[in-house]
Amino acid sequence: MGKQRVAVIGAQGRMGAEAVRAVEAADDLELVAALGRGDRLETLTEAGAEVAVELTHPDAVMENLAFCVAHGVHGVVGTTGWTEERLATLRGRLAAAPGVGVLIAPNFGIGAVLTMRFARQAARYFESVEIVESHHPGKADAPSGTAVRTAQLVAEARRAAGLGDQPDATTTALDGARGASVDGVPVHAVRLRGLVAHQEVRFGDEGEILTIAHDSMNRSSFMPGVLLGVRRVVEVPGLTFGLEHFLDLDG
Amino acid sequence: MGKQRVAVIGAQGRMGAEAVRAVEAADDLELVAALGRGDRLETLTEAGAEVAVELTHPDAVMENLAFCVAHGVHGVVGTTGWTEERLATLRGRLAAAPGVGVLIAPNFGIGAVLTMRFARQAARYFESVEIVESHHPGKADAPSGTAVRTAQLVAEARRAAGLGDQPDATTTALDGARGASVDGVPVHAVRLRGLVAHQEVRFGDEGEILTIAHDSMNRSSFMPGVLLGVRRVVEVPGLTFGLEHFLDLDG
Amino acid sequence: MGKQRVAVIGAQGRMGAEAVRAVEAADDLELVAALGRGDRLETLTEAGAEVAVELTHPDAVMENLAFCVAHGVHGVVGTTGWTEERLATLRGRLAAAPGVGVLIAPNFGIGAVLTMRFARQAARYFESVEIVESHHPGKADAPSGTAVRTAQLVAEARRAAGLGDQPDATTTALDGARGASVDGVPVHAVRLRGLVAHQEVRFGDEGEILTIAHDSMNRSSFMPGVLLGVRRVVEVPGLTFGLEHFLDLDG
Amino acid sequence: MGKQRVAVIGAQGRMGAEAVRAVEAADDLELVAALGRGDRLETLTEAGAEVAVELTHPDAVMENLAFCVAHGVHGVVGTTGWTEERLATLRGRLAAAPGVGVLIAPNFGIGAVLTMRFARQAARYFESVEIVESHHPGKADAPSGTAVRTAQLVAEARRAAGLGDQPDATTTALDGARGASVDGVPVHAVRLRGLVAHQEVRFGDEGEILTIAHDSMNRSSFMPGVLLGVRRVVEVPGLTFGLEHFLDLDG
Repeated sequence: MGKQRVAVIGAQGRMGAEAVRAVEAADDLELVAALGRGDRLETLTEAGAEVAVELTHPDAVMENLAFCVAHGVHGVVGTTGWTEERLATLRGRLAAAPGVGVLIAPNFGIGAVLTMRFARQAARYFESVEIVESHHPGKADAPSGTAVRTAQLVAEARRAAGLGDQPDATTTALDGARGASVDGVPVHAVRLRGLVAHQEVRFGDEGEILTIAHDSMNRSSFMPGVLLGVRRVVEVPGLTFGLEHFLDLDG
Repeated sequence: MGKQRVAVIGAQGRMGAEAVRAVEAADDLELVAALGRGDRLETLTEAGAEVAVELTHPDAVMENLAFCVAHGVHGVVGTTGWTEERLATLRGRLAAAPGVGVLIAPNFGIGAVLTMRFARQAARYFESVEIVESHHPGKADAPSGTAVRTAQLVAEARRAAGLGDQPDATTTALDGARGASVDGVPVHAVRLRGLVAHQEVRFGDEGEILTIAHDSMNRSSFMPGVLLGVRRVVEVPGLTFGLEHFLDLDG
Repeated sequence: MGKQRVAVIGAQGRMGAEAVRAVEAADDLELVAALGRGDRLETLTEAGAEVAVELTHPDAVMENLAFCVAHGVHGVVGTTGWTEERLATLRGRLAAAPGVGVLIAPNFGIGAVLTMRFARQAARYFESVEIVESHHPGKADAPSGTAVRTAQLVAEARRAAGLGDQPDATTTALDGARGASVDGVPVHAVRLRGLVAHQEVRFGDEGEILTIAHDSMNRSSFMPGVLLGVRRVVEVPGLTFGLEHFLDLDG
Repeated sequence: MGKQRVAVIGAQGRMGAEAVRAVEAADDLELVAALGRGDRLETLTEAGAEVAVELTHPDAVMENLAFCVAHGVHGVVGTTGWTEERLATLRGRLAAAPGVGVLIAPNFGIGAVLTMRFARQAARYFESVEIVESHHPGKADAPSGTAVRTAQLVAEARRAAGLGDQPDATTTALDGARGASVDGVPVHAVRLRGLVAHQEVRFGDEGEILTIAHDSMNRSSFMPGVLLGVRRVVEVPGLTFGLEHFLDLDG
């Protein structure tokens, strides 16, 4: 079987440069084009790309994907800024191009995606749950977007299972001691020089604690997720939102 | 809706006494019988038990379940010592009693069951995996049965996904430093005064680490699993082996 | 050498009952008296007690210690409620009884005392520090007294070393996400069913993280500290406040 | 007060290049010379260096230090390969140069040095202790040198305190499960893709666990230790072996 022919759009960005390296290092993939700012999209078709990894900017992504879909090139997209309207437009284009698949992933970290999924699944079985996320001190938002999203998923699963409020007998507290409440799930944000990006979801019940912890050390941790997307998107026509749909977690 | 009528067989044992307390404390359950050594099994039917929690001994469990199945009482079983032959006998009895369900669970700890399941699901996505289990120093076996079972499930998932050996450049090692190999998964057993029962499954790949950790502090941690079994076994005729089949983990 | 003769005052309380058991179990100690509510203090001298472990109530402790000091019985005290005035009174009595020693310890947990000491010593060498304490959900105060005290010691050591504010680029935060500030040290309080009492002090600097973590599972963890106090108080005349002064941490 | 005048010998190596950057970034230090392979040692004196950071090779270090000591330049040395004979030679040279100080440090990581010191101090107070070190899978030795050294220090402190063997009821074990024994302290070596260098020292006693954990992410974590050495060596004439002697850990 020949190698899959892959292009990277946005190859000069930090994520793009990582993707170029990752595709080149994969035995079953061949990098056939690496487009930077100003390069013509026709390069994709001239190079015979089957899949394009799109890592550019919200201003450019719609045009890039329109070209890909129109020319039968599957897409794996890490660019952000998706609205319902944009997704609808893209779905319309895909409807006119049967067989073409596009994966949009807000997070290509397989560990992060697994953490969210496991946390959601465990949520209904524990009376208590809190999240402690820890990042470098240069981070502007607290808690992290991933921690907020995880808390929302956990809260949703608790509601669906009919769980009520968490037990908490606190009567005297310093401001902030009990963290931020995200839909009733306390989230604590630690900032320490020397850290990168870390998240612990801690569940507790009578006599037992379950902890799901994810440490992300650098951008290269996203590449296995990008490559997984590249390999699977060709078999999944239409639009897929979220890498979790490409993970095989049954059984 | 009336309360579910529950009996405990082996009510004087340590697990049985916990089960009695747990059933009594549950709003939707009613304890209608608590049988100890020497008590007549007819007490179950006289008391109108719908479900019997069986926590006795391998010598007694087959006779106890034969009575239950014959009289339409569902069973939730924590007693060990199951062989293929015993399971076949039990399946035969259940075939003659349509509508009756029996759950046999080697481990009623929901956290332990979730840990094993999540570990198995994550296994294919990480190049490296090791297990560190930590217990009180009075434990006779190393590693723990749960750690060995978890390692086997992880190894099986790696094989199914076509993963090869784990990376390990060790050339100089003290005996035992790299742990015990269980189907190629290194397992380390820590023994410390002050601990109870703990297990960490650590996955690693380029730039990220995923850890699933479970701490079990006492026998009461098994009770939510026993109650879950009691509530669901009435809807699942036939034999179910393993609490994981009663956990709702889809979606 | 004969065994040291030890009495417990407050032997019917929870800590007192533990102390009785601990003294009885120690090869080098002999329990000669166990006083409960209403027992005469003269029992101490009649039994020939050399050291009295005082675990009663702020209302009773001054009278109990007055008797001990006057009769040459050393004291190891876990009762709380000490004010400067009370300490001065006690010091006056000890001045009149040369050779008699009294140890008052707000915390007999050796691990907790070591954690505070190590945290204080490490503080000057790290740009960042935060504390995450985790307790059972029945706890009324947040953060725990131990976490607040640890944060104060760490903050004091940072000031003494001329360290400024911690780095923190947070510009957008949910209320409470960044914890409670205790003298500039963020402290986060987690409450989960299944936990007992836990504290992590996390230090961070360029490229490295140092964590000092202490888990306390039950009251029996205080007993090694009580016994250490009993054995050493006889050699240290006068008043000692804090178990740390009896720990040998040089070199 | 003027800045301290610092030179780096071995400035083209990886540690040396980090040291150059670190000295340049420090407000109170001035980089006056950066010597690479082939550069003349006289550059040090011509540039007026007060302290030289020596990060070269065992073949070169003795000659480099001989020059420094003879010319009144203090030394901060990270080069390895020290034997008793070499240390004696260096001590002889320093005896002839009153006022000149040399610090040799096998490990400049302040966190690693603190971990070893705290572990040694805590050792006598806990019945059980084990070490879990975790590194990237490219590491050749298991356990790490730091873990072996830590275990030796802990074992020495236990012996000095009269502690006997650790409790361990293991009767059935898979080969390697209980780790490597370093002077009676079990040491476990985990190897995972994605890790750098990590060590946990876990102490346990009745009802409590104390953990001292150190994570080292990269070479830059050694620089605070190098700078601390540079600032303090000028006040400590003669030979100092080990950064711990420059840490202020009293009180």
